[in-house]
Amino acid sequence: MRATYLYEAGDVRVQDAPDPVIEEPTDAIVRVLRSCVCGSDLHPYHSLTAADGPVPMGHEFLGTVEETGSEVSGLQRGDLVVAPFAYACNTCEFCRSGLHTSCPKGGFFAAGIGGAQAEAVRVPQARGTLVKLPNDVDEKLLPSLLTLADVYGTGYHAAHQARITPGDSVTVIGDGAVGLLAVLSAKQLGAERIILMGRHKTRTDLGRAFGATDVIAERGNEGVAKVRDLTGGHGTRAVLEAVGHMPAYEMAVGAVRPGGVISRVGVPQYEDAPIGFGSLFGPNITLTGGPAPVRAYIDRLLPAVLDGTVDPGRVFDRTLALEQTPDGYRAMGQREALKVLLTP
Amino acid sequence: MRATYLYEAGDVRVQDAPDPVIEEPTDAIVRVLRSCVCGSDLHPYHSLTAADGPVPMGHEFLGTVEETGSEVSGLQRGDLVVAPFAYACNTCEFCRSGLHTSCPKGGFFAAGIGGAQAEAVRVPQARGTLVKLPNDVDEKLLPSLLTLADVYGTGYHAAHQARITPGDSVTVIGDGAVGLLAVLSAKQLGAERIILMGRHKTRTDLGRAFGATDVIAERGNEGVAKVRDLTGGHGTRAVLEAVGHMPAYEMAVGAVRPGGVISRVGVPQYEDAPIGFGSLFGPNITLTGGPAPVRAYIDRLLPAVLDGTVDPGRVFDRTLALEQTPDGYRAMGQREALKVLLTP
Repeated sequence: MRATYLYEAGDVRVQDAPDPVIEEPTDAIVRVLRSCVCGSDLHPYHSLTAADGPVPMGHEFLGTVEETGSEVSGLQRGDLVVAPFAYACNTCEFCRSGLHTSCPKGGFFAAGIGGAQAEAVRVPQARGTLVKLPNDVDEKLLPSLLTLADVYGTGYHAAHQARITPGDSVTVIGDGAVGLLAVLSAKQLGAERIILMGRHKTRTDLGRAFGATDVIAERGNEGVAKVRDLTGGHGTRAVLEAVGHMPAYEMAVGAVRPGGVISRVGVPQYEDAPIGFGSLFGPNITLTGGPAPVRAYIDRLLPAVLDGTVDPGRVFDRTLALEQTPDGYRAMGQREALKVLLTP
Repeated sequence: MRATYLYEAGDVRVQDAPDPVIEEPTDAIVRVLRSCVCGSDLHPYHSLTAADGPVPMGHEFLGTVEETGSEVSGLQRGDLVVAPFAYACNTCEFCRSGLHTSCPKGGFFAAGIGGAQAEAVRVPQARGTLVKLPNDVDEKLLPSLLTLADVYGTGYHAAHQARITPGDSVTVIGDGAVGLLAVLSAKQLGAERIILMGRHKTRTDLGRAFGATDVIAERGNEGVAKVRDLTGGHGTRAVLEAVGHMPAYEMAVGAVRPGGVISRVGVPQYEDAPIGFGSLFGPNITLTGGPAPVRAYIDRLLPAVLDGTVDPGRVFDRTLALEQTPDGYRAMGQREALKVLLTP
């Protein structure tokens, strides 16, 4: 098959690779119908050293089941399925509590198991991981269904962990696909005031379409001052942080109301940060978030995607064939494209 | 009147001071019946420089109303009242949401306004701050009622912010008065497994009486390993951190289960700490807590104190007269006493 590998920063190649095969009786092989490039793929795209490459790329996909291991029930050849970016058993105590990212049998696609920017993928723990979609689904829905693999579930995780309730006030930091879908998720959970912090007008316009009531282009102290101006001086009860860099964390601390919640889904590019009396403790701020257990949210989010109530697939603004994947990385790396959809 | 001042580390004096007077129409003057020394008083007792002294001491008291300002309704001379350590209006949006420590009209007793280790105290925002107690209350209940001013409400805040529910598993770090009352609070909220980390047997014995199911004397990695041994390798869902030093935070990170909550009420003696992928983010740990808005909890906690269901006053293991306050600091500083009650 053809599959995508990152050799080192900036060097993405689509090349021949062995067809994936069933290795464990709990595996399935899925033929990829749609995959995409993630904002988090850009971290290694910008920093991987040649010594650490090549690594298989891509962790978001939907496709059809091609083969199942002997212990995989409930799935058969030809089923249309979507996979969360983390595979998991869906039966252990962590999965039952909705924390599939901590499943002892679980792990991640791409570098962990085989990339999804490819023609086919081996899926461990297939029964727990794969979610069946209607086989007759309209092809136009495929981009939105694909967002259930990561970015929609991740944006939803941010809002869910912040315990957004009707009437709430929320700041979303970051206008990438996850930030925009955090806006959509906050709106679905009833947030009344949704302030989106982002600088790319085409993106923040989509954020407004998803439910943002205000957009702030300024960053740092200036951005924080704008949030406070809009909220009677106190900030919003929740801040959803979808970037992961320290300045975004500092803005979150500045924009959150005393007693409020900072919910992070941008992977932190730092380890130590201020959490003492002068930042989180004094004003009783709660810090939450982490890698999204998107498997826990797919069943909940699927109906509104299928019936067209929401259209999270609007985050895809470019579609390329698998062979053009390197150009997709380039376009996203240069912020020409928000998110690139890949077809076989 | 007589009042307590800290001149510098180790130098506590009880001396003559001006009687407090009504300064604002929202003030009341309370004659102190019982006050006490707090673990947090030991921080300046160990570190205050002569240049920063003298400062009035004490923020926990109950007593009788002696005089009220012209705008204070609902209180009259002779009423028995208890005050939270932070005064507040109890009517603004922060107070209504239970965050009295962020009240714009609020502040703290002791260094902020006048100490409670004294014969009388001026209470700002008296109508919002003071909570009436039955005037005929049994004198034996006064120590337990006094804990509502801080340590019981603070321990309860830790458990409340961790959203303890029936059947929960909890680790409490610290066997001071707040840690022990965090045990009691977790028990009241239905926790099934309560692991108390502390090294002083008389204190941890009281912790067992309050509901601790296990006691761990070890610290650091050794202590964390013990918690994991007791919990199938994963740690407890909640960790209540009642110390405030970095090693306690590190133990909390080690002892909390993936997807769990660290709730801090020990005032952090650090500003930066690990919160990245390797500590909080990867396992989706929530960090919460702060200065306790004890005013929000007094009404809830009072009935079980009055009817004797709980006896949080057991944290007082020594009673001294106000004039002996310096000896109370010495005894607590040397860990001879857990918590010292002061009588006029």
